[in-house]
Amino acid sequence: MSDTKEKLSFVDKTLEKADYYSHAVHVLNYDMETICPKKARQKEGELIALTSNEAFKILKNKKFIAAGEDIFAHKDELDPLDKVLAEHLHRSYVVNKNITPGLNKKFSLTFNKAYVDWLEAKEKSDFSLFAPSLKKVRDVQDKIYNLRDDKTSFSTPYNSMLDGCEKGMDEATLDAFFGECKARLIPLLKRINSAPKKIRTDFLSRKVSVERQAKFNQYLMPLIGFDLDRGALTTTEHPFTDGLAKDDVRITTHYYEDNFISNIFSVIHEGGHAIFEQNQNEEDFAHHINENMSMGMHESVSRFYENRIGRSKAFVHLIFPKLQADFSDIFSDVTEEEFYEGINAVQPSFVRTEADEFTYTFHIIIRYEIEKEMVDNKLPTSQVRKLWNQKYKDYLGIVPPNDTLGVLQDVHWSSNGFGYFPTYALGNAYNAMYYNRMKKEIDIDKEVESGNFANINRWMKDNVFNHANRLDYKAWLMEITGRSFTPDDFLDYLEDKYTKMYNLK
Amino acid sequence: MSDTKEKLSFVDKTLEKADYYSHAVHVLNYDMETICPKKARQKEGELIALTSNEAFKILKNKKFIAAGEDIFAHKDELDPLDKVLAEHLHRSYVVNKNITPGLNKKFSLTFNKAYVDWLEAKEKSDFSLFAPSLKKVRDVQDKIYNLRDDKTSFSTPYNSMLDGCEKGMDEATLDAFFGECKARLIPLLKRINSAPKKIRTDFLSRKVSVERQAKFNQYLMPLIGFDLDRGALTTTEHPFTDGLAKDDVRITTHYYEDNFISNIFSVIHEGGHAIFEQNQNEEDFAHHINENMSMGMHESVSRFYENRIGRSKAFVHLIFPKLQADFSDIFSDVTEEEFYEGINAVQPSFVRTEADEFTYTFHIIIRYEIEKEMVDNKLPTSQVRKLWNQKYKDYLGIVPPNDTLGVLQDVHWSSNGFGYFPTYALGNAYNAMYYNRMKKEIDIDKEVESGNFANINRWMKDNVFNHANRLDYKAWLMEITGRSFTPDDFLDYLEDKYTKMYNLK
Repeated sequence: MSDTKEKLSFVDKTLEKADYYSHAVHVLNYDMETICPKKARQKEGELIALTSNEAFKILKNKKFIAAGEDIFAHKDELDPLDKVLAEHLHRSYVVNKNITPGLNKKFSLTFNKAYVDWLEAKEKSDFSLFAPSLKKVRDVQDKIYNLRDDKTSFSTPYNSMLDGCEKGMDEATLDAFFGECKARLIPLLKRINSAPKKIRTDFLSRKVSVERQAKFNQYLMPLIGFDLDRGALTTTEHPFTDGLAKDDVRITTHYYEDNFISNIFSVIHEGGHAIFEQNQNEEDFAHHINENMSMGMHESVSRFYENRIGRSKAFVHLIFPKLQADFSDIFSDVTEEEFYEGINAVQPSFVRTEADEFTYTFHIIIRYEIEKEMVDNKLPTSQVRKLWNQKYKDYLGIVPPNDTLGVLQDVHWSSNGFGYFPTYALGNAYNAMYYNRMKKEIDIDKEVESGNFANINRWMKDNVFNHANRLDYKAWLMEITGRSFTPDDFLDYLEDKYTKMYNLK
Repeated sequence: MSDTKEKLSFVDKTLEKADYYSHAVHVLNYDMETICPKKARQKEGELIALTSNEAFKILKNKKFIAAGEDIFAHKDELDPLDKVLAEHLHRSYVVNKNITPGLNKKFSLTFNKAYVDWLEAKEKSDFSLFAPSLKKVRDVQDKIYNLRDDKTSFSTPYNSMLDGCEKGMDEATLDAFFGECKARLIPLLKRINSAPKKIRTDFLSRKVSVERQAKFNQYLMPLIGFDLDRGALTTTEHPFTDGLAKDDVRITTHYYEDNFISNIFSVIHEGGHAIFEQNQNEEDFAHHINENMSMGMHESVSRFYENRIGRSKAFVHLIFPKLQADFSDIFSDVTEEEFYEGINAVQPSFVRTEADEFTYTFHIIIRYEIEKEMVDNKLPTSQVRKLWNQKYKDYLGIVPPNDTLGVLQDVHWSSNGFGYFPTYALGNAYNAMYYNRMKKEIDIDKEVESGNFANINRWMKDNVFNHANRLDYKAWLMEITGRSFTPDDFLDYLEDKYTKMYNLK
């Protein structure tokens, strides 16, 4: 055991070193995605690949791996946090076992190049400029899969990707989940579309200057609990959140003068991610186990703040007086009820991140089905655009007018982010489950109406954030709700909300 | 000689590696100065110190140093570019000879801590919060000086700092330069202050929204030749330029709603630095000799674009119609002549970066005299604030109302940037010398009036930018003007411009 202690100390020191490189990679990545000029992207991408490979080299060090495996062999004798660390080390060892630093660098360079090509293709709205790079990404993914010793534990290659984003998730579970979503949401969408009640949305596109939107964000962010001394907000084409370091969590937004609401909900969504990141366990950082096991949990949090809180009547009741006061020129002829309905109106649309809460799931189903086709059935990348447009027609009845608003809208495929999309939809289902649990302890609407987020955020920390690095989704949901994963809470919630709003009952 | 070739190749490969770390350090530094949240600065500062120490370690490698010294010993047998490289290697070797990576890291951490403390002290406008860190910076500087083998080649410690910023510059030259400036500018300032002619400046503080200012920058930057595909503009408290990589030059500005003009000239100033960086010799990058020998040359360029071009009648004639069209609500009652005079009005002020072209030199003289006192005469750092305020009273007749507008306004002292301030004033003198030379070949006013910057920028590349990594200021000025350094051209220009503008003759 004293031998294990020594090894733990060696592992700790090694991870400390690797953390420096990871911190640098995070800053470099953030720079790449926010401000790096067009013609500098290639070079900065190489810098990122090389720096991240330095961290990778440290983790591939033989002595380090031997120590990690030895600790893992004794995991049941360890303190709980060390046991978690042992499991993280082993998982990382297995996944990377046959990937050399040379290969890792090569793969990273491929992904970085694909990202740069995607940016350009999107700017030019031409999928054909991206398809060859996407093929290279797919080739690398196949290589990575074939290099895995444990590949027989996955019944399909795509399952290995799902497991990487959401430990324990697989196609069978998702097929059932999305099947249920389709069974209940497609008929409801038809009823909504033919509902006599028309929702007023004219005021949503009224022009609000960037400065005024930015000023409103300064009210919104601390309101929900985002600490700006340990975070920042900037502007990007595609909003995202990046936890660069323990005290450095950054979110971005995009301002559209004719879509103020887009910015508000983007900031609440990314703000939710940020609150999650800012409230990670201190001791997890100290133990180098700050690596989430469930991306669906992360997305459940952002979508909890965005939808369950942000698009609720209670939240509208809280912020509407402020909106009326600061934007009297914009909202003077709008009632609180009209505002609530407007931000919840169901309207099939092209862009996932701008979708309403109801149609959002269809955007995910489309991506999930295409990914599966690409990975398991080797759909040629050149065919992806066609399939995308077909599915938008089938599910939402609309065809993207161009690739920027269609198949090129998301960054994920360029950056090897396959298997991630489903976690957005899973997040909705997870937070519906824990919302119902939270309700038993907290009068959520009352807290929100009074602008008091302390109790809600504390509940989230105890029941969600604190489990991020320690439990997979199955164990976590069981732990806090006493139930297995189910889409019912989510679908019940949507049915209830929208049948009421559209007077369908 | 084949042995030297081998060594050159080894040196090249080593510098390639060091360049990756330097690139990373530049991105990290840029992040630190633009967006890094308050409570993450300390940690990111440590990351910068560690990353920059990785580059330092590479350059301290014994084999690398031996190769560099061997190449230097054979420098007269080398191709011109290799000879320059040999000189750079030798200079770097001498300066860092007795500094170990351990010391280097310690020093960097001291400077980073001082930077973080300065930011906080400035926010709180309290010099006493910064004075202890400034003392630590001074202590490190003394250590660095005492570690230099060649310190006897400098008659004072401050001279070694001047040489670091401006190779070959010393106190004797600066004393003579600033003496001449004082002798000619102090009497003229008195005449201007008591001139009967009053310049109209009321329109300078009219409110212009950030968005409109930002939009105007999109016209201004390409106009003067800043390539935005290889660069970017962001917002910071203190505008600066950073050449992060060959195709990545970024500038920043600060928007004040009630000071549109500040943004315009800040963008032209930083844009000038950026044009310099974007037009460095390609082959210098390939040869790893992209390290300027003269910071005064760099500042001469930014101040050439800001003042000699930007504040000229010709430039006003070029942009005024655009200003009148886009900002008719702001400038409709202003004539072109009034605009020209307004942006050139002489007005003693507290903040160097906002100073008019005439009083600017006094801001530099004050800093130069204080630096000399601190370094050569060991003025206690606790006394610096008092001396600062006294000198503003003596030279400009005004006393800063607080430390933010006074002794804490500049970043330089926190970041070991002693010896840099004089290069701003030298830059004015240099560009006056080469402006007179350029005039013989190009009708500058005519080109500017027609918005054609191609010939001017080409002349600048041939006569200024191309020499940046190869010549010190003495050799460079002799090469392009055939004359030794003199303040006369600069002082003649100021006298001529301002006696005319204030009708003093």
